[in-house]
Amino acid sequence: MGFELTKEYIDQVCSAVEQKDRQWLDENIFDLHDADIAAVISELNTEDAYKLYRLLTEDRQGDVLMELDDDARDLIIKKYSSKEIAEQLENMESDDAADLIGDLPQKQIEEVLSHITDDEAAGDIVDLLKYDEDTAGGLMQKEFIKAKLEWPVNRCIVELRRQAEEVEKVFTIYVVDDEDKLVGFLSLKRLLFASPSTKIEDLYQSKNLISVKTSDDDEDVARVMEKYDLVSVPVVDLQNKLVGRITIDDVVDVIKEEADKDFQLASGISENIESSASVWRISRARMPWLLIGLLGGILGAQVISGFEGGIHEIPALAFFIPLITAMGGNVGVQSSAIVVQSLARGNDQFGSIFKKIAKEALVAVVNGILLSIIIYGVAYVFDSITLGWVVSLSLFTVIMFAAVFGTLIPLLLDKYKIDPALATGPFITTLNDVLGLFIYLTIGMILYGI
Amino acid sequence: MGFELTKEYIDQVCSAVEQKDRQWLDENIFDLHDADIAAVISELNTEDAYKLYRLLTEDRQGDVLMELDDDARDLIIKKYSSKEIAEQLENMESDDAADLIGDLPQKQIEEVLSHITDDEAAGDIVDLLKYDEDTAGGLMQKEFIKAKLEWPVNRCIVELRRQAEEVEKVFTIYVVDDEDKLVGFLSLKRLLFASPSTKIEDLYQSKNLISVKTSDDDEDVARVMEKYDLVSVPVVDLQNKLVGRITIDDVVDVIKEEADKDFQLASGISENIESSASVWRISRARMPWLLIGLLGGILGAQVISGFEGGIHEIPALAFFIPLITAMGGNVGVQSSAIVVQSLARGNDQFGSIFKKIAKEALVAVVNGILLSIIIYGVAYVFDSITLGWVVSLSLFTVIMFAAVFGTLIPLLLDKYKIDPALATGPFITTLNDVLGLFIYLTIGMILYGI
Repeated sequence: MGFELTKEYIDQVCSAVEQKDRQWLDENIFDLHDADIAAVISELNTEDAYKLYRLLTEDRQGDVLMELDDDARDLIIKKYSSKEIAEQLENMESDDAADLIGDLPQKQIEEVLSHITDDEAAGDIVDLLKYDEDTAGGLMQKEFIKAKLEWPVNRCIVELRRQAEEVEKVFTIYVVDDEDKLVGFLSLKRLLFASPSTKIEDLYQSKNLISVKTSDDDEDVARVMEKYDLVSVPVVDLQNKLVGRITIDDVVDVIKEEADKDFQLASGISENIESSASVWRISRARMPWLLIGLLGGILGAQVISGFEGGIHEIPALAFFIPLITAMGGNVGVQSSAIVVQSLARGNDQFGSIFKKIAKEALVAVVNGILLSIIIYGVAYVFDSITLGWVVSLSLFTVIMFAAVFGTLIPLLLDKYKIDPALATGPFITTLNDVLGLFIYLTIGMILYGI
Repeated sequence: MGFELTKEYIDQVCSAVEQKDRQWLDENIFDLHDADIAAVISELNTEDAYKLYRLLTEDRQGDVLMELDDDARDLIIKKYSSKEIAEQLENMESDDAADLIGDLPQKQIEEVLSHITDDEAAGDIVDLLKYDEDTAGGLMQKEFIKAKLEWPVNRCIVELRRQAEEVEKVFTIYVVDDEDKLVGFLSLKRLLFASPSTKIEDLYQSKNLISVKTSDDDEDVARVMEKYDLVSVPVVDLQNKLVGRITIDDVVDVIKEEADKDFQLASGISENIESSASVWRISRARMPWLLIGLLGGILGAQVISGFEGGIHEIPALAFFIPLITAMGGNVGVQSSAIVVQSLARGNDQFGSIFKKIAKEALVAVVNGILLSIIIYGVAYVFDSITLGWVVSLSLFTVIMFAAVFGTLIPLLLDKYKIDPALATGPFITTLNDVLGLFIYLTIGMILYGI
């Protein structure tokens, strides 16, 4: 089950690196998996991390580099000259290489590219840098195996052997016509069992051929691969020419990032930031929602001040203000979370909006009645029968409104192409706070006859 | 880019199914991908769905069945006799078959199994039913390709051809010794290029062999496959015997479910439920958090009632109650979200707790100062300089506390093996509400000299 890091182990690594104890490192680190070496490097201070990294053989440096997280990778890359970076790139797959240098200044990118000796590799990187990183083009790699329709199986195996040297993982062979247009695919398994003289055109499969376009959104690519259980998907350009492939491991990262982003949006964080980001970046990412919350609070103050006379007369009315606002927020967030998730799964194309709202309203009625009965008793014991009625009636009303808004707002946002996960956050809470206060105090004034 | 459902298309399908228009169905549905047919079936009413399903050829029925969501699948399975279910199972992979009948009553499971003619297949299903569905054993399938160390390549290809008939996707060949213990692996690519007389033992790879145990948690399996970029992973028993394999498509589902669960926990929903679940189930799943919120509200009422005299004297104090509770909640949720995500990624093994809290506190200081300055101005304009001081001082204090608790609580929960995503929900909001009220009103009493 892989490999576990311990504090002691990291301490040993530190001293071995500082004493340049090659033998210890050979025995204890260098035959680990790239991902494990990267995990070790992430735990070291910058100095030791860099030293350990330089002790790796050259062709492993690139692999380990790609397993590091962005911050650690940037630290190491900064210490390299353009020529050294170019050397690293030659041991990498094209998509990793493009990702690695994509964030460098334009001038340095050109310098690095001029040092790459393999023209084809350099061309692939230049090509990949053209695409937006959130698209299929930005996700794909140029390493894939393709076969032509008219090839016989033995020719295909010879070509495959040649191509396969640079393709780390072979899942599927893509079949193209004379113009390089994608026409089908062929599993390695099928090729293995075919007789050498069979032609590819008699062997390949064109039914159920799934491909994506370079301009497709990366989240759509993830949805397609997930839906059709694909481990790799071919990428075509506007003319249906085969230009790359995307493998599932890169898509798993997209799925994780998407889930993280939704979780953060729902928690009131507007940019996807690592917990290792700087204090300023973290502050900035959180500010927008806090300002919305502040505005909501100010509006709430405005509402309450409108009822100042009533509160002066019956101060007990103030007791249940936090209960009303909290419950409105909780119910709203619960309702919206369900809608946000169904929208994210994309399985509600025809689910009628009214059916959803009706169901949420029903759930709200059930929960509202139960909670109102409880709070009636509590407020009665606390103060008076009148307060019992005020709190329970308004709690019920607030729960109903919160449920309906919690359902409606994400649906509306989605309709206007805004990420509905926004709705689950402070947005709904804030709206329900203001509305809840108004309902509560109005019912209070009426029942107390003020 | 796959296939899009439209309202018109579904209407056409409905009438074709009702008129048994086989020709239209052949041309427009039956050569779609299984996943697309399942999507169409999900959009039909139960009657039509079942009719369309029965029109599929027998060997496709099983494949389409596995692409349906749980509810739709149960509806179809209910209409089948045990014998018919057994026939379906024979066209399925072992893990899908076990999933399908796992939820049936024990008696019916035995009946279904007795109707399966292939003894080996029945044995595989019985074996898989033993494992908990949240473990590697519950996720694995019995279809995989294995080779023995002493085989030459040509023997391996013959065996492979025999085994491969029942293994839909071949990624890696697992190599075992005489006792069936896993010793290494071999890529199909490597086998394809080897000379026929080479022995497997001279060809296979044992370095970087990653496997999981049947009892491993499914989320750990997902983490391992993600970390090492695997498309399939072998599963071994306690004696290291090879018993199954897990493919990435099943793990992608685990990753999605895990993300959904965290999102729901953070939104105050305690069970993973589909939006199609019954009103009662939805109500029940939401109740625990609403009760915690209610309890928080009651405690809040208790706190405020302790300051009843003060509010009677200065009703303006009540104005900013919602602001204080809302901001405490927002800041707390933001802080905890970041911690929950780092914990979920498992990349904070040595990240010291105090370092994290210090950083959150720093972010809180920055945001707290900014927001306090704004609210000072607002409260001053609203009412008085004194209220300005009360609100801004207490807002700053509440933000500091909320940030520290928001960081500490998920770390504590994680330490005691409770899912930290719990913390992001109403739990932290409620705690911060009560604490915030106390801080606000106390500062109010002091500054107003009551």
